[in-house]
Amino acid sequence: MNTQSSTQEAVSTRLAAIRQVLGQQGIFALLVPSADPHLSEYLPEYWQGRQWLSGFQGSVGTLVVTADFAGLWADSRYWEQAERELAGSTIELMKLRPGSPGPLDWLAEQTPEAGVVAVDGAVMALASARQLEDRLVVRNARLLTDQDLLAEVWLDRPQLPSCPVYQHLPPEATVARGQKLAQLRQTMRERGADWHFIATLDDVAWLFNLRGSDVPYNPVFVAFALISLERAILFVAPGKLDSQVRQVLELDGIEVRDYDAIHAGLAAIPAGSHLLVDPARVTRGLIDHLQPAVRRVEGPNPTTLAKSQKSAEDLQHIRRAMEQDGAALCEFFAWLESALGREPVTELTVDERLSAARACRPGFVSLSFSTIAAFNANGAMPHYRATEASHACIEGDGLLLIDSGGQYLGGTTDITRMVPVGTPSIEQKQDCTRVLKGVIALSRARFPRGILSPLLDAIARAPIWADQVDYGHGTGHGVGYFMNVHEGPQVIAYQASAAPQTAMQAGMITSIEPGTYRPGHWGVRIENLVFNREAGRSEFGDFLAFETLTLCPIDTRCLLPELLSEQERSWLNDYHRQVRERLAPLLEGSALEWLQVRTQAL
Amino acid sequence: MNTQSSTQEAVSTRLAAIRQVLGQQGIFALLVPSADPHLSEYLPEYWQGRQWLSGFQGSVGTLVVTADFAGLWADSRYWEQAERELAGSTIELMKLRPGSPGPLDWLAEQTPEAGVVAVDGAVMALASARQLEDRLVVRNARLLTDQDLLAEVWLDRPQLPSCPVYQHLPPEATVARGQKLAQLRQTMRERGADWHFIATLDDVAWLFNLRGSDVPYNPVFVAFALISLERAILFVAPGKLDSQVRQVLELDGIEVRDYDAIHAGLAAIPAGSHLLVDPARVTRGLIDHLQPAVRRVEGPNPTTLAKSQKSAEDLQHIRRAMEQDGAALCEFFAWLESALGREPVTELTVDERLSAARACRPGFVSLSFSTIAAFNANGAMPHYRATEASHACIEGDGLLLIDSGGQYLGGTTDITRMVPVGTPSIEQKQDCTRVLKGVIALSRARFPRGILSPLLDAIARAPIWADQVDYGHGTGHGVGYFMNVHEGPQVIAYQASAAPQTAMQAGMITSIEPGTYRPGHWGVRIENLVFNREAGRSEFGDFLAFETLTLCPIDTRCLLPELLSEQERSWLNDYHRQVRERLAPLLEGSALEWLQVRTQAL
Repeated sequence: MNTQSSTQEAVSTRLAAIRQVLGQQGIFALLVPSADPHLSEYLPEYWQGRQWLSGFQGSVGTLVVTADFAGLWADSRYWEQAERELAGSTIELMKLRPGSPGPLDWLAEQTPEAGVVAVDGAVMALASARQLEDRLVVRNARLLTDQDLLAEVWLDRPQLPSCPVYQHLPPEATVARGQKLAQLRQTMRERGADWHFIATLDDVAWLFNLRGSDVPYNPVFVAFALISLERAILFVAPGKLDSQVRQVLELDGIEVRDYDAIHAGLAAIPAGSHLLVDPARVTRGLIDHLQPAVRRVEGPNPTTLAKSQKSAEDLQHIRRAMEQDGAALCEFFAWLESALGREPVTELTVDERLSAARACRPGFVSLSFSTIAAFNANGAMPHYRATEASHACIEGDGLLLIDSGGQYLGGTTDITRMVPVGTPSIEQKQDCTRVLKGVIALSRARFPRGILSPLLDAIARAPIWADQVDYGHGTGHGVGYFMNVHEGPQVIAYQASAAPQTAMQAGMITSIEPGTYRPGHWGVRIENLVFNREAGRSEFGDFLAFETLTLCPIDTRCLLPELLSEQERSWLNDYHRQVRERLAPLLEGSALEWLQVRTQAL
Repeated sequence: MNTQSSTQEAVSTRLAAIRQVLGQQGIFALLVPSADPHLSEYLPEYWQGRQWLSGFQGSVGTLVVTADFAGLWADSRYWEQAERELAGSTIELMKLRPGSPGPLDWLAEQTPEAGVVAVDGAVMALASARQLEDRLVVRNARLLTDQDLLAEVWLDRPQLPSCPVYQHLPPEATVARGQKLAQLRQTMRERGADWHFIATLDDVAWLFNLRGSDVPYNPVFVAFALISLERAILFVAPGKLDSQVRQVLELDGIEVRDYDAIHAGLAAIPAGSHLLVDPARVTRGLIDHLQPAVRRVEGPNPTTLAKSQKSAEDLQHIRRAMEQDGAALCEFFAWLESALGREPVTELTVDERLSAARACRPGFVSLSFSTIAAFNANGAMPHYRATEASHACIEGDGLLLIDSGGQYLGGTTDITRMVPVGTPSIEQKQDCTRVLKGVIALSRARFPRGILSPLLDAIARAPIWADQVDYGHGTGHGVGYFMNVHEGPQVIAYQASAAPQTAMQAGMITSIEPGTYRPGHWGVRIENLVFNREAGRSEFGDFLAFETLTLCPIDTRCLLPELLSEQERSWLNDYHRQVRERLAPLLEGSALEWLQVRTQAL
């Protein structure tokens, strides 16, 4: 309570300060997105202005502040958290639903004739800035993008991160950076481009076989890349590269410039050049540095598709990483099962113990996202995070949801499992069984290569919809290779737009993670990662199927086996047989025993 | 052969004539779409210029003619037919595949700098004309839309149709035109429009509760409508309405003008008005008649959504129409089964006998499309049509595919069934069984109200994809109520764009018709119509499920029952029980016997 009210006091002071700036400059509204110049999912603190100004800590949300209104738009994943964190503030939670009006609609509606809306162009995607400008036209309103108004009031703003950059080396790095650059330039030629600008950190890190730790969980570093048919320039703060990395890059013909030199770098692209950029993946503020005579060729970053298609060699490393990760999970689950009811276990203990189990495993680098350990009602918040101030003890009856993952040199993991605590109710078991049916339906699917991935979502949902149940999040996201746990271009979500670049290709890794959320009661989610493997060619074309990568028992004590069909039961038994065979050699003692028991056939 | 070569001679003369016109006017290319000013699926002969000029009789295809090239773009449904009909001509078949370049891409590529491309703007959708202009910009090329070049060479062009217009009356017409107009005006107000222009014939016919027979199979008439908040004007050739219909319309406050007066009607919309139009459903040529100061509000025709949502009363009539249609089918199938092997039966006989059986049924008006009776290899062409000159005798072993439907005063039917002839092969039975699995999977689905219909396609395809099989057409199209057999806005097809207006709503009628096509061998398709019924509300929202409307046995002699799951078998048995119960009272003698035998449980 104390923390909450002191936060609200700070928020109130900050809002007053920014409103003063708006008043002085005659600005109607300030828009603060959750974004940085790289349009990253996880932001370095330097760019967490929306959190600082609103007090809402969720990773996605958009704040709009005017003289007499402050509203935060967030989607259903964050409603419970936002309601809690905004309580006592004057900031209104604006619930974002598919098809419902968002902040741009609000601004288009509320901005007075010839009013001014400000946003820091450095952190707004070119495509979003265009959308907003299009909406403001009817009001003859103006979008101001060349100032960072927050800078004027955020005096104790954190520094940019300065963590070292290191190489991703063979054997785990299976393709040399020279080869990646050659492939990129080939695609640039096909698209009629002689320059390409990359602002997205995972694309930069992947292209150069470099990694960093500037943001939690994502092994990336703050940088830009400018690639021409002859040159490759990496813009990164000078202190981040040691002499060895510098030398290696130099030998590969890669020029290194200071991070801040990107403005000059963009301005120096010769007039008449054709620059390939993705308007959704570069910001307006950066693009404004180009000479007007540079022609833009718009399209997805070629590295995004290339990065998503893991090689057969990558797959070998991923399978090993999954075995290590699965072994760590078994050790943790064996401990958890023995500890429950015997010693105090909280959601925080779960995080600590599980993280420690992973940390012992060879190749482990870091977690791939903040562990979600959520007991009963907390599990109903898909993006719940336990804190020192607020967390549950695991006791009594119910379901514990654990969504966690690791970064290994040879792959990235992301898994959700349900743990029975005491005696879960029939309704809880029904939810778990139904969600598992969704996992199995999609895991068993075969589909034409090139199918737009959002179209596969209904296969996972059909058995869940059958009982009039649904969930607000997508069923699956792309996953990187020792890289971000969320990556494109594919996405299995009916809410996503089925754009051509979402087409399924061999080598992609995607999560399958349907769920069911009963606010105030419990939440269920079961998640495996799957690999798009070639599944044969017929007169009807090439087909793909999923290889399930994740190796960890699905606790059958949370299930009602009589609800599973023969096919579903046999999928589960086959899966458990494989989990046992591949994890047993890595385990001993109580963890091995736990594995044997939890993989028994139904 | 003689027919083919005389057609090719005519095509060659016509191409030469149009090339002379192009040369005289300095035009690089002429584009001839399959379209009329109403953007109808079936065109009156007057607008069948593409067929006349190319010799290709398929209903969808786009012709491009330049001085030294002629190409016809058609999708996979028409490749076999187009290859046959274009053989011997100089017209190249350009195979249209999802994602492959189409005629607009070809023109954007081939048009010389500052060249001129001509198309009759009267028959090109506003949206398509815009697309083409956008593509031609890079060439500084110009799109000429104000001339119908075909008129100069097509001297024996047919007249516009002049069939009478009649009323769709109660009890089958369940909503008065006054009520429909009030609902439309309400939507116009919500969209900020004071005028609305409707060019699509089914929307016009539905709105005024009128029907006609200007094109085969679709009970519509050639007309336009202009609706303001106070006025409703129907533009139709004067001879088509008798004095009674005129009087009724007048009493309802509907003004009637000549068809050709639409140009003046559009020009008379006052400056400053807000006109609601769907850029995909009106043509460029017509819109060019508007005063520049008329503001356009763009969006789907409200009548398209309203028309798709059949009422509970409509549903009662549809169920009765389906019973009559099913009874006619049973009579036909009973005859067919007795005739096969005893008397000569051809694909044409099938069409005659089936049409005759339907024609005896109360409420029957016409067929809803041209019957497809296709034996073995002919079945591999999804849009095959037997002709006097070319058709198969039904003899030997194999599969006969029959896709047919009727227009009844109380509903529109569309059904495909497979008939075993002699002894179908195991492979043929496998294909039939797999396709039936697709029908069942989707028929059993429950889904959230508002789900975008293209996203449901994967549910039907999953069991078919499982065996590396796919089909090029969509799984389902909307169906009208004594109206066009193809209507929007919903469409169950992964090839379709999942636009917001494709959302599933209660009352829609859609086909479920997966297939498998083995070119040169056989084709399989099984089709039922289904109704979107409300299937309950939960904390997760409103759900819909399908009620299967079509009533006719699915011949189990084409199936391998051991490939069906318990659930699938039980769906089929339940379906057959219902078919038997509802059709038996309408049948007697051999047709009743046939029904009893063919609906026996598996």
